[in-house]
Amino acid sequence: MIILTLNCGSSSAKYQVYDWENKEVLGNGIVERIGENISTIESNIPGRESHTRKRACPTHKEAVELIIAAIIDKKNGCVTEINEIKAVGHRVVHGGERFIKSVIVDNEVIETLKELSALAPLHNPANITGIIGAKAVLPDVPHCAILDTAWHQTMPDEAFMYALPHSWYRDYNVRRYGFHGTSYLYTAKRAATLLGKDPLKTNIIIAHIGNGASMCAVKNGVCIDTSMGLTPLEGLIMGTRCGDIDPAIIPYIISRTDMNANAVDRILNKNSGLLGITEKYIDRRDINDGVEENDERCILAQDMEAYRIKKYLGSYSAVLGNVDAIVFTAGVGEMSPPVRAKALSELESIGVKVDMEKNAISKSQNCETCISAEDSKVKVFIIPTDEELVMTEDTFALMNGTYDVHTNFTYSFQDPSYVNKNREAALPRDLEKRPGLEKIIVKAK
Amino acid sequence: MIILTLNCGSSSAKYQVYDWENKEVLGNGIVERIGENISTIESNIPGRESHTRKRACPTHKEAVELIIAAIIDKKNGCVTEINEIKAVGHRVVHGGERFIKSVIVDNEVIETLKELSALAPLHNPANITGIIGAKAVLPDVPHCAILDTAWHQTMPDEAFMYALPHSWYRDYNVRRYGFHGTSYLYTAKRAATLLGKDPLKTNIIIAHIGNGASMCAVKNGVCIDTSMGLTPLEGLIMGTRCGDIDPAIIPYIISRTDMNANAVDRILNKNSGLLGITEKYIDRRDINDGVEENDERCILAQDMEAYRIKKYLGSYSAVLGNVDAIVFTAGVGEMSPPVRAKALSELESIGVKVDMEKNAISKSQNCETCISAEDSKVKVFIIPTDEELVMTEDTFALMNGTYDVHTNFTYSFQDPSYVNKNREAALPRDLEKRPGLEKIIVKAK
Repeated sequence: MIILTLNCGSSSAKYQVYDWENKEVLGNGIVERIGENISTIESNIPGRESHTRKRACPTHKEAVELIIAAIIDKKNGCVTEINEIKAVGHRVVHGGERFIKSVIVDNEVIETLKELSALAPLHNPANITGIIGAKAVLPDVPHCAILDTAWHQTMPDEAFMYALPHSWYRDYNVRRYGFHGTSYLYTAKRAATLLGKDPLKTNIIIAHIGNGASMCAVKNGVCIDTSMGLTPLEGLIMGTRCGDIDPAIIPYIISRTDMNANAVDRILNKNSGLLGITEKYIDRRDINDGVEENDERCILAQDMEAYRIKKYLGSYSAVLGNVDAIVFTAGVGEMSPPVRAKALSELESIGVKVDMEKNAISKSQNCETCISAEDSKVKVFIIPTDEELVMTEDTFALMNGTYDVHTNFTYSFQDPSYVNKNREAALPRDLEKRPGLEKIIVKAK
Repeated sequence: MIILTLNCGSSSAKYQVYDWENKEVLGNGIVERIGENISTIESNIPGRESHTRKRACPTHKEAVELIIAAIIDKKNGCVTEINEIKAVGHRVVHGGERFIKSVIVDNEVIETLKELSALAPLHNPANITGIIGAKAVLPDVPHCAILDTAWHQTMPDEAFMYALPHSWYRDYNVRRYGFHGTSYLYTAKRAATLLGKDPLKTNIIIAHIGNGASMCAVKNGVCIDTSMGLTPLEGLIMGTRCGDIDPAIIPYIISRTDMNANAVDRILNKNSGLLGITEKYIDRRDINDGVEENDERCILAQDMEAYRIKKYLGSYSAVLGNVDAIVFTAGVGEMSPPVRAKALSELESIGVKVDMEKNAISKSQNCETCISAEDSKVKVFIIPTDEELVMTEDTFALMNGTYDVHTNFTYSFQDPSYVNKNREAALPRDLEKRPGLEKIIVKAK
């Protein structure tokens, strides 16, 4: 049985094709520049060269059609015919307070997601168009929504409420929602498995650091706080987003310039963060090159990014009381030892002692490593995230009638013997490139 | 020799009259409702009943004249004639990056403070009017400016820079400045004295919780981070200020209502914080009464206030690496055991263990107490702040030519034998009211 997962961003659509019986990724890819004159589709099949084509995709509907065509393409596809796809899982950014777990999409769900679009005006409309487009192409299979916010609905009110007029919560739904929930679910469960502990008795701090970045405090297996808020702007310093600032800066800048609130908002989201500090780079690899060349702004940007992560590590450590493990995940979390080194240095006051040599070696998206020192009270893991797998398993379980909220549900990747076959196949290349990597790979207990 | 200190807020002016030789407060008081039809002046002389009168004070100039008249009043004054006042110290809120320590006010200083008014449009103009008014009444004595921001100028750039377009720092001075600096200077030096340590080898976290509230991380005796930012809006939850929020809430609320950025800014400053949450109370005593009556909103407000403090305690603990003491100060910090109890509970992961019985007893502005358990790695002190004394000593030293930045200067209150005579005189009343208070009073080593 084949399960397709789709992740429609504002101008892109990612997909993954998963063979349920063989627990194997058959293919994946991305359509970019949706809405522009020419869109591109890149499609990959594990072990083969990736394939790129150009087509016009005025909306996400055409993008979904293009994805289906790529999947069943005789020469470069990974599925013989469309009927093999038995269910589709859709990533949806904002589920407000209405969804505490994944759900089969019916008309009522679509209406609710439309109502929530005011909270995520860039993301939810794209998600909805993707769902409607996919339903048109695949009308006879279940379509499921996997919501970024659902994981965070366990936060207590002292963590999710803002000290703002209560009417703003009542009338405009202003509260902390949090994002990256699917990634937190995966990494929290994996960390418990690596620790050999019951996830519902495990306390973890997770740093999901990609181009977007956030952190999450997990107590007894459920989210109790996170750094992103009403929107994905709050919290950590990101590629182009500012994260935490004095909110009074917005009216101050408006008073000093001729910008309106929308223009300032755009700058906070698109021209701030590492790009704002360096005035040239978003990509952490460029910034790291700059650091090595003693570029002052790059040093400042990396120091600021790591300092903010360190502050949240301390904050969540205090909130949790007892921490079993810290987890780094997502592109930068998995692949940037320098950011991790700065964020994790001199944290013995909160029980964290990192082996900096192990940290320097840990740079692979194909294995899970432990970089804390032997005598560190708190373990530090690098766990490559796998949001698509969570989406796939939720979709299968929803279709199968076995699904429930994550505290009452066990995922395949919680099994100590779980192996991601595609990663396992790719690992030897990393082991060859990085001597010592094998020694820090952590195995489930 | 008499030294007068003045603290002009947007519609008020506080004063204190200090006898330098006898190290004694002769009188103090406040003018309120400046700019309204009728202003009130309350003046106090230690050990006597306070005295209130009504007068018209259209500006801070008249308020300063009223203060001088009250001080030299034959019947209710505390000074025989105006010439006894040998210097005046003025509190100034925003010194930008231009002042790293207190300074004698000349025309150039006034011009600089005027330039900085864009950064503190409510406060600096009032401070400047107060200085000009006092200079008119007392033209022949030195007037000194003691700046709230000066203490914080030791922050490293990773702490004071925001991840915003670098041009906003260059062109509009957007950065973290921090406030309550005079209070932090006093309490940091006192904490080092109570610990019997060299202040320049002491790490402290200070929570200044009054109606306005902020926190400060002090490493080796100097400020390395603080929760307030460009303005006093950022950070902790305050009486009417929201503290940290997702900055995207401002454009979101503007898009959902007919408010402009100024109107939203006013709400974030005047109608948020504890008032926004409870929709009725600002004063922590009212909120605590509500908590005791099981009022849900009051419980939420107190939980949120304490939770935010706890997060900053953890954050600054991580940043400092090693913490000698946590200090609570200012009205709420000194007088609200319930807020402290919630903020300080279950912090053993960062080395903090509070004796909750001691915490419950510590409610006095006339003594310094230690509320941590005997075996707590980190000491927890309650230290009543004394900003006026710092202002007085800076003013004297500036006049005397002995002043320097605080790392090269020793204040009288750093002496282990230092005693605040007025507090000592008032203490017996507190000791009578609170059995056990005597046992937790901490003496300098």
